[in-house]
Amino acid sequence: MIKVFGHKAPDTDSTGSPIIWAWYLSEVQGTPAKPVLLGEPNTEAAFVLRHWGLDKPEIISDVTADDTVVIVDTNNPAELPPSVNDAKIVGIIDHHMLVGGIKTKNPIDITIRPLACTATIMHDLMGDALARAPKGVKGAMLSCILSDTLEFRSPTTTAHDRAVAEKLAADLGVDLGDLATKMFEAKSDVSAFSDAELLRMDSKEYNVAGKELRVSVLETTAPKLILDRKDSLMASMVEVAKEDGADQVLLFVVDILKEEATLLVPNDLVRQMAEASFGAKATGDTVVLPGIMSRKKQIIPALKL
Amino acid sequence: MIKVFGHKAPDTDSTGSPIIWAWYLSEVQGTPAKPVLLGEPNTEAAFVLRHWGLDKPEIISDVTADDTVVIVDTNNPAELPPSVNDAKIVGIIDHHMLVGGIKTKNPIDITIRPLACTATIMHDLMGDALARAPKGVKGAMLSCILSDTLEFRSPTTTAHDRAVAEKLAADLGVDLGDLATKMFEAKSDVSAFSDAELLRMDSKEYNVAGKELRVSVLETTAPKLILDRKDSLMASMVEVAKEDGADQVLLFVVDILKEEATLLVPNDLVRQMAEASFGAKATGDTVVLPGIMSRKKQIIPALKL
Repeated sequence: MIKVFGHKAPDTDSTGSPIIWAWYLSEVQGTPAKPVLLGEPNTEAAFVLRHWGLDKPEIISDVTADDTVVIVDTNNPAELPPSVNDAKIVGIIDHHMLVGGIKTKNPIDITIRPLACTATIMHDLMGDALARAPKGVKGAMLSCILSDTLEFRSPTTTAHDRAVAEKLAADLGVDLGDLATKMFEAKSDVSAFSDAELLRMDSKEYNVAGKELRVSVLETTAPKLILDRKDSLMASMVEVAKEDGADQVLLFVVDILKEEATLLVPNDLVRQMAEASFGAKATGDTVVLPGIMSRKKQIIPALKL
Repeated sequence: MIKVFGHKAPDTDSTGSPIIWAWYLSEVQGTPAKPVLLGEPNTEAAFVLRHWGLDKPEIISDVTADDTVVIVDTNNPAELPPSVNDAKIVGIIDHHMLVGGIKTKNPIDITIRPLACTATIMHDLMGDALARAPKGVKGAMLSCILSDTLEFRSPTTTAHDRAVAEKLAADLGVDLGDLATKMFEAKSDVSAFSDAELLRMDSKEYNVAGKELRVSVLETTAPKLILDRKDSLMASMVEVAKEDGADQVLLFVVDILKEEATLLVPNDLVRQMAEASFGAKATGDTVVLPGIMSRKKQIIPALKL
């Protein structure tokens, strides 16, 4: 039984794509597969599972040499089970830059495309077989695209992602805007999470000019819910950085509707980075970055000291 | 102008695939591209260029940060220009195991498939556009498949590689067996090469049980031409290993028609490896390995000390 999984902080794409691909492998390719998760799905992903009547996949903490696996929505070993390179990796489907840490023992199927969403790539790979997919699989595909593109607002969105989502919405008879609103509301409900959980929820590590940065993004339609907690979030950053071996946590609160990010500025290092990276003069403990929505396309390429 | 190239020891696939893909990028995608080589094509690849009336691509020794490149038929930095990770890599098409050394700054197009030949993957990616390709491009595609599959004898051959080659041969009105025979004769003409050149001609480096091995394969329909030179080839191995920082050169002479390999046994290390890896008792300075034709599929997975 092939295990299909995304990264350790399951958002909608890393929760939905394994479900889509496990269906395709099992039902179309005839190679039994099941989706698994590497952590608890975020509130949006949990909503998507409920909304489409999908079972929450089992959560696993590691893999072994006996596991056959397909990796989706990442190619970064830091975001994968510790023993991933011991497993028999038979496929990778992703839309992120190649970081170069995964090795395979044989030639395998790897498809990486500069699209907004893993599910869009799966749509293309599945071809006509998609017509046979149950509603839950098509619905997961649509939700993945709406999530990763922030309903086509993110600059990562391509015309192709949008066309696929619109085709799926028509096929499913779904009001795309209505579904997106419900998903973003679910994602914006952060009341149940501690500060440390929020800082790690959608977070990736990067080395910038010799500094280990944990770059966290919270996409929300209710930024006030997060910004009201900014003092305790900034206090928590010190502890989280220490525990995770990082020099600094950066938290970008992305306002999906206003299409801007607010960066928390706990100290002079972050103040300096805000100016060097985005030309933004931070006088207080937050700074607004108009138009900034994508870590992959706008934040990471800009970051400098 | 995008530069499309394969690996440093251009065989038919690493010479022909860049020509095929540069045509597709330029003429179908509308993104100007040209094929380049990282070394002199081998005698088979040179024959293929002449046979299909194709210009020999320019040979380059490195790339710079100003270059935009597509890498084909390898994903191994050791087989690529020294500055490859400085260039703007926009695509990778390959059929080898992922070795994990290439990094990209953005998400790019990567397609790796467990097929025998890069050109087969290109065939699939091109879809209907192939119909518009000139004879030289289709001919290069056919020759790449015949070369990498050793006319369907290699165990790397899939039914799909074979079906694509047969379709191309029919389309071009070419006798597939006749073309393959001429290609293998060209490859078998090794008279112009020094021993050191032969040892490096189709050679890849691997670490096995702590030993750096240069694993060389010579595919030929005339093994006698090479085996008659075995004493001087074995003498040359010492110098080549030293110059290339390897512990040992292994030379497998693959008899395409008899479907067997002859391994040269210059010392006890290689004798021991022949027995541990292939269960072959070498009493003299060569040992025949029946059925062994593929480095990727049969030699590398078996190698041990």
